[in-house]
Amino acid sequence: MFIRLDGEGPIYRQIYRQVRDAILAGQLPPGSRLPATRPLARKLGVARITVIQAYEQLDAEGYLDSRRGAGTRVAAALEGLLEARFTGHDAPIPRLSSLARYAADNRPGRPVGRNTPILDWDFQYGRPAVSREMLSDWRRSLRQAAISPRIGYPDPMGEPDLRESLAAHLREHRGLLADPARIMVVSGTQQALDLIGRCILNPGDGVVLEEPQYQGTRHAFSAIGARLLGLPVDGDGLRTATLPDDPGHYEAPIKLACVTPSHQFPLGGVLPVSRRLALLQWASRQDAWIIEDDYDSDYRHEGGTLQSLYSLDRSRRVIYIGTFSKVLFPGLRLGYLVLPSTWVEPMRQLKWLNDRGSPALEQRALAELFRSGAFRRHLERNARQLSERREALVAALREHFGQAVEILGARAGMHLVARWPDHPPEQSTALIQTAAKHGIGIYATSPYYLHSHPTSLELLLGYATLEPEQIREGIKRLKKLWSVLH
Amino acid sequence: MFIRLDGEGPIYRQIYRQVRDAILAGQLPPGSRLPATRPLARKLGVARITVIQAYEQLDAEGYLDSRRGAGTRVAAALEGLLEARFTGHDAPIPRLSSLARYAADNRPGRPVGRNTPILDWDFQYGRPAVSREMLSDWRRSLRQAAISPRIGYPDPMGEPDLRESLAAHLREHRGLLADPARIMVVSGTQQALDLIGRCILNPGDGVVLEEPQYQGTRHAFSAIGARLLGLPVDGDGLRTATLPDDPGHYEAPIKLACVTPSHQFPLGGVLPVSRRLALLQWASRQDAWIIEDDYDSDYRHEGGTLQSLYSLDRSRRVIYIGTFSKVLFPGLRLGYLVLPSTWVEPMRQLKWLNDRGSPALEQRALAELFRSGAFRRHLERNARQLSERREALVAALREHFGQAVEILGARAGMHLVARWPDHPPEQSTALIQTAAKHGIGIYATSPYYLHSHPTSLELLLGYATLEPEQIREGIKRLKKLWSVLH
Repeated sequence: MFIRLDGEGPIYRQIYRQVRDAILAGQLPPGSRLPATRPLARKLGVARITVIQAYEQLDAEGYLDSRRGAGTRVAAALEGLLEARFTGHDAPIPRLSSLARYAADNRPGRPVGRNTPILDWDFQYGRPAVSREMLSDWRRSLRQAAISPRIGYPDPMGEPDLRESLAAHLREHRGLLADPARIMVVSGTQQALDLIGRCILNPGDGVVLEEPQYQGTRHAFSAIGARLLGLPVDGDGLRTATLPDDPGHYEAPIKLACVTPSHQFPLGGVLPVSRRLALLQWASRQDAWIIEDDYDSDYRHEGGTLQSLYSLDRSRRVIYIGTFSKVLFPGLRLGYLVLPSTWVEPMRQLKWLNDRGSPALEQRALAELFRSGAFRRHLERNARQLSERREALVAALREHFGQAVEILGARAGMHLVARWPDHPPEQSTALIQTAAKHGIGIYATSPYYLHSHPTSLELLLGYATLEPEQIREGIKRLKKLWSVLH
Repeated sequence: MFIRLDGEGPIYRQIYRQVRDAILAGQLPPGSRLPATRPLARKLGVARITVIQAYEQLDAEGYLDSRRGAGTRVAAALEGLLEARFTGHDAPIPRLSSLARYAADNRPGRPVGRNTPILDWDFQYGRPAVSREMLSDWRRSLRQAAISPRIGYPDPMGEPDLRESLAAHLREHRGLLADPARIMVVSGTQQALDLIGRCILNPGDGVVLEEPQYQGTRHAFSAIGARLLGLPVDGDGLRTATLPDDPGHYEAPIKLACVTPSHQFPLGGVLPVSRRLALLQWASRQDAWIIEDDYDSDYRHEGGTLQSLYSLDRSRRVIYIGTFSKVLFPGLRLGYLVLPSTWVEPMRQLKWLNDRGSPALEQRALAELFRSGAFRRHLERNARQLSERREALVAALREHFGQAVEILGARAGMHLVARWPDHPPEQSTALIQTAAKHGIGIYATSPYYLHSHPTSLELLLGYATLEPEQIREGIKRLKKLWSVLH
């Protein structure tokens, strides 16, 4: 056996490693005798105790048989186990679960329709404006929260302080009465959807979605093996008259409907009370549940706060989802659920199974942001700024496109949809590509359609991160590119 | 219609709310005419514009039909939708998925065998000692990380800086070579197990576990509907000779084996290299995967760092899980996976579906803790402290129980198992209860057994959070209670 001291780490580790690797490589076969410690130490010019230490480590890991008197031998138990060691370098392909096969085929993590070049006028959606003041408030709250951090495992339902703050916020800001015991903190809307799906869906169960819809919703339920039914929306949101009412028609029950009643995503309709009531009646008849994804209700640019579907519901069939990705920022990974009482216990268990609870630090910092009033200040400042930007965008679209453009969903949120009824939907690809080359980021709505397609040219335009001046310039430049369509 | 201004919120919201509630209560039936704005304003003693605002809000939410000339009426579309409003107060019971039914029946979130009274000598497991120095280093790293937080959605694989640091740490501290591109950051070991299960398990698939085993592992796979095969362990960990080798024997394939080779949980055996090789061979034959849950390998009290199963594996069938719950604290919710190359893409997608990625803040702070050297300092200090406490516990057990007690798994980690072969396992309940009444927290191993039971009295004793003096006192007092067993 040739031992070369390679200088990496303590000497006993070098000896240990070389003997070990010689055994694994078959150079020292099972049952063969190792050199005695004294001559080996002398040969290597090290203390005997160093060789003994190396042999002890090998022995502890089961490489050696050390019987008194018989000397030290390579463990006989290794016989027949070394030859078969795989020598290739590629990992085998896992036989994926149906869930993972869905994920691999659909790549939900890769946003569709996003452009990569640097864009000077990027009408992106999903990234809010973040002010320096907010960040400094956030850092202050974090420092406060870090003074005595939660050491042990978190409560799977979330930090009690935050849940109290959320109950107060929902009451004051949203007119929604929620018992903190039924509020559950999660790591964003995606986790809320995933947990809800895991809570009641078996493969084959039906889920009603709006068509078009947020992709994360589609993927969360589809991956579980649910049958998705995308029902049409119009300017008033989901057309509840199309809700399927005959359960016998389907092989498995419809268990869930997911809606965005405050501001349909992406087309922006507000669901009128008659449709809300029809939806609630349908859910009762079907023994189904309704998810109210209230993703951007904090920003309403015309009129007052809308009553939530949750508040209207007296049959307790609505699960409310709120998020801080729009008011603060998505990197925070915080959202929450308001659950029907009968859902609390199974959801707590599922959250435990999934990750044992979201980290407490951000939760406590957020509670502090509520307590100090900074959250409300930031919300109001944000709302004013968004209203200005939205007005600039609507005005610019009108100025440059006149009555040729329809503007959808501009009454709330951080984006609108611009539709050109006289242009076919196929034109969007060329337009988006040309615009990107000219530094303008505009986005197709087509990725949000599940069963169908836009009927004319539609663009999703976010306005949260652009100054009014940039918005005007961007739309002006977009108009100049219009010739590409002819 | 009787409108009472109740002083809550702006006057227009008060009017809006009262009219809305009257409509929902059926007091203003669909089609009925609302009072004209002018006389109503006069009657309430408010400006007419205030009433108009309230009506506009009602109109925006679909409560009204306002046709020019016909006056304002309650929306006819509400006809037939109000009567059916459910008047009970209890939420209906959800028809749970099989996953949620499992969770509801097994309540994985409720730790078994934990005592509630205040314990002066609590030999708890799973909560590390946290020094003031560590917390102050942690706060400093957090401040650093918060300077420019990640605003947008995180990378589902984790923060690049942290993954680089982890690769370096694994190389230096664990002798494990891992490409950062194959390291995935997750919100703790539980999420790692959940994602792995979701990645390859279909209901009915087999999973090999050690018996006894960590409960979170059992629950993660069982909830998905996997068939669990708990194989016996001895003082050397999993008895690999019992690995089932005939795939035809089972209705669905065995896809996974989850082991704790560095320090079997909870009994503490170190898996010798012959068994490691046998396990790897078995996995290749079965086309199965091995999870190496390396939950406490950072603390080794006798001998040097053990080679990981991951490093020994040349067939790329090992998925390595590491956690910071033991070296830092569980409230942090950070762990990581080293994945075979073929697992990276599906796991990235599943992580996106689950929560879009763990929050960046703690990840960046942890990367900073590595960068500054504070992590290594803390690890070394912790290891020294744990060794002292472990020695105190072993010595106290020997002093008071002599050869009547067997000590298992004391060579590594933060806990050991004490076994009294002459006492039957049934005695543990009385002993634990009596001990709790006397301020001593000791824990049964029975909850960790899936198919079987301890064959004699066994206690799981954690020693991370007790000073040596407390440990000695606790064991001395435990001995005094021994009479309860007779």
